Amino acid sequence: MRQGITPAEALRIVLEHAPPLGAETTSVSDARGRVLAEGVRSARRLPPSDNSAMDGFAVRSADLASASAERPVTLEVIGEIPAGGSSELTLRAGEAARILTGAPVPPGSDAVVMQEDTARDGDRVTIGISPQPRAHIRDAGEDVEIGDQVLEAGALVGPAEIGMLASLGRSVVSVHRRPRVAILSGGDELVEPDGDTSGGRIVASNSYSIAAQCLEVGAEPVYLGIARDTPEDIERHLRAGLRADVIVSSAGVSVGDRDYVRGVLEKLGCSLLFWGVKMKPGYPLTFGRFEAGDGPIAFGLPGNPVSAMVTFEQFVRPALRKMAGRRSLFRPTVRARLADRLHKQSDRLHFVRVDLEREGDEIVARSTGNQSSGVSRSMLLARGLLIFPAEIHELRKGDTATVQILDEDFLAPPTPAFS
Amino acid sequence: MRQGITPAEALRIVLEHAPPLGAETTSVSDARGRVLAEGVRSARRLPPSDNSAMDGFAVRSADLASASAERPVTLEVIGEIPAGGSSELTLRAGEAARILTGAPVPPGSDAVVMQEDTARDGDRVTIGISPQPRAHIRDAGEDVEIGDQVLEAGALVGPAEIGMLASLGRSVVSVHRRPRVAILSGGDELVEPDGDTSGGRIVASNSYSIAAQCLEVGAEPVYLGIARDTPEDIERHLRAGLRADVIVSSAGVSVGDRDYVRGVLEKLGCSLLFWGVKMKPGYPLTFGRFEAGDGPIAFGLPGNPVSAMVTFEQFVRPALRKMAGRRSLFRPTVRARLADRLHKQSDRLHFVRVDLEREGDEIVARSTGNQSSGVSRSMLLARGLLIFPAEIHELRKGDTATVQILDEDFLAPPTPAFS
Repeated sequence: MRQGITPAEALRIVLEHAPPLGAETTSVSDARGRVLAEGVRSARRLPPSDNSAMDGFAVRSADLASASAERPVTLEVIGEIPAGGSSELTLRAGEAARILTGAPVPPGSDAVVMQEDTARDGDRVTIGISPQPRAHIRDAGEDVEIGDQVLEAGALVGPAEIGMLASLGRSVVSVHRRPRVAILSGGDELVEPDGDTSGGRIVASNSYSIAAQCLEVGAEPVYLGIARDTPEDIERHLRAGLRADVIVSSAGVSVGDRDYVRGVLEKLGCSLLFWGVKMKPGYPLTFGRFEAGDGPIAFGLPGNPVSAMVTFEQFVRPALRKMAGRRSLFRPTVRARLADRLHKQSDRLHFVRVDLEREGDEIVARSTGNQSSGVSRSMLLARGLLIFPAEIHELRKGDTATVQILDEDFLAPPTPAFS
Repeated sequence: MRQGITPAEALRIVLEHAPPLGAETTSVSDARGRVLAEGVRSARRLPPSDNSAMDGFAVRSADLASASAERPVTLEVIGEIPAGGSSELTLRAGEAARILTGAPVPPGSDAVVMQEDTARDGDRVTIGISPQPRAHIRDAGEDVEIGDQVLEAGALVGPAEIGMLASLGRSVVSVHRRPRVAILSGGDELVEPDGDTSGGRIVASNSYSIAAQCLEVGAEPVYLGIARDTPEDIERHLRAGLRADVIVSSAGVSVGDRDYVRGVLEKLGCSLLFWGVKMKPGYPLTFGRFEAGDGPIAFGLPGNPVSAMVTFEQFVRPALRKMAGRRSLFRPTVRARLADRLHKQSDRLHFVRVDLEREGDEIVARSTGNQSSGVSRSMLLARGLLIFPAEIHELRKGDTATVQILDEDFLAPPTPAFS
């Protein structure tokens, strides 16, 4: 097991052990946010037949070759083409048919004349223009041909993909499985939110924020509850998570007397790959994987809420996205100017919780204040995490730095894109 | 009713009639993505009591005033402070207690000495440093005091908010209601995805993409099915949507013979506020509101898939976000350089479907090709919608323009923020 590695090394190791999960079949309506595990070819043409792009009359362009405003041509209207259902109509010389937008062009017809260019009188229509062949006809297959590869494996399914799959008549589609994440809190001082908090007990809030972090990336959280600080109770809880794709435990991985989680993980067959990442908050992060079959990967997150959230952001989140088949793993970043000086003694990389504001063309980052990892309130104020590199000990007021955007609303403009 | 207004005017009218919805109570675990309708004050202190920031020994700093490496002081270890549950221990002169991180500091003690600075021998511990009073003690209420306004009304509930609410012992919270959106497709040519598509019939795919667009913003879609092109059938379907917050119908709002939706909406008590927006795609957009009580607002979207998706993006999406209480209503935008010339005849604003690529520091926008609103495949390729302003008729290769980002993955960097 490696110890005291850099965040970049840690992330590389994590992602190496987080391959995309296998495929499952889901209904198209439930596929939103999933990633296609199959390419989709079309078994139909879209539109299915030549059809009218306008409300008007289907005609034979040859009949109107000499037509003009001065010398209009009158045709016999033999009926109307219904928008749905097949028509028995076939156009012969001298005939026209009323047609609405989207209706199939009848056999014999090769053009549509817009309603505005016609004058109807009973079963006759007079036309003063000479349409080109194919005028106002949308070709069958203009959008999609039979056999076209319409969607690629790896595509994220959004509204446009769902609309297309529906158009193709697909009711189910193959997608990568959602990662199932077993979440465990460990500590004798922990209670559920409705529990008794006298005597210094605190709520196992990490399990709830971690579950929400899982849902944000489309993973499925499974809550294993609170383990007491004994190897037996931790083992009992962890066993319940062995069928998950990922185990995330928080607390119990400090160097203290009660550090049982790592031992229990190893006992259950987990190879620990690293412990301790040179970052702040979040140093006591543990990562391992179960060797047997396709056992889960396991993250031991530090116990305090800020450290747990930050380490989830940096390592668990990209792993879950990769497992779900996503190509894009990381949060958007911006370059921001510092409103105040930042300094540190350590040669660890610091993730500084910052508020962000736009000032003209610039983005200004301001520390949320007390950066103690015990101050969970600071996470509420953090619109981003500023990267304070390991090798730098001072960032001066006015310097620029990279900031990971946690609050994606920050990227949205306050006013519409058009005016 | 106004006709042929600009997109900016249309958006202003829509948002004016889309106030935030009322409050409902939801469980904290289900509150993710919702907007708080109440400010949250804390009924507890966090941490609940003075507690140790380290594994080590709780001491009385006065006992160690003279301690140094050369002249260490030995104290009697009277027990261990459990992390959870109250301790009966009180420290008297000459005494120390074993303490673990997070455990409450016992009465009588005013400092913690780190384990690394101690040597234990049975029930005695020898200490070679002189701690300051309060050393390694986290103060009760350091994070949150009783009565603190921890969350403001209007806050979006994410993982940090859920963790905090759990820590405060909250199991439910008041949030703005999710908009319920009744979705209707209209047209004799439409069938469900498993329907018979012979004779030029096509799938009512808009209802599926619109439902997905609703889910993307946390709204709740209710599918009303497909109405046939008769006033009676449209009325029957629309009546089922009157209890929703928003009605979205697609097709049936062209100028064609079958334009029954507007008439039926008015018959049911809807005041139409505008018809026709000077944009492409999407001109035949209708918007109205039901006057009586808190009846729904109603959007009649154009029938073809691209127009339906683009008009939803521009008008329905911001309205739904506003109704859900969101402060941020609009898609992120970027400035992009055009890879090719774009031109148009009309003085309508065009939303040009574009692919986007990064080239160095620049973003390059390339038309997805055929901009016919019949080509639904182009929406699959569109990572953004480029704003081609009404009053401009040509954008030259190399010009820059504003692009709304549809594919938020585009904003994510391909590599980690740290290395």
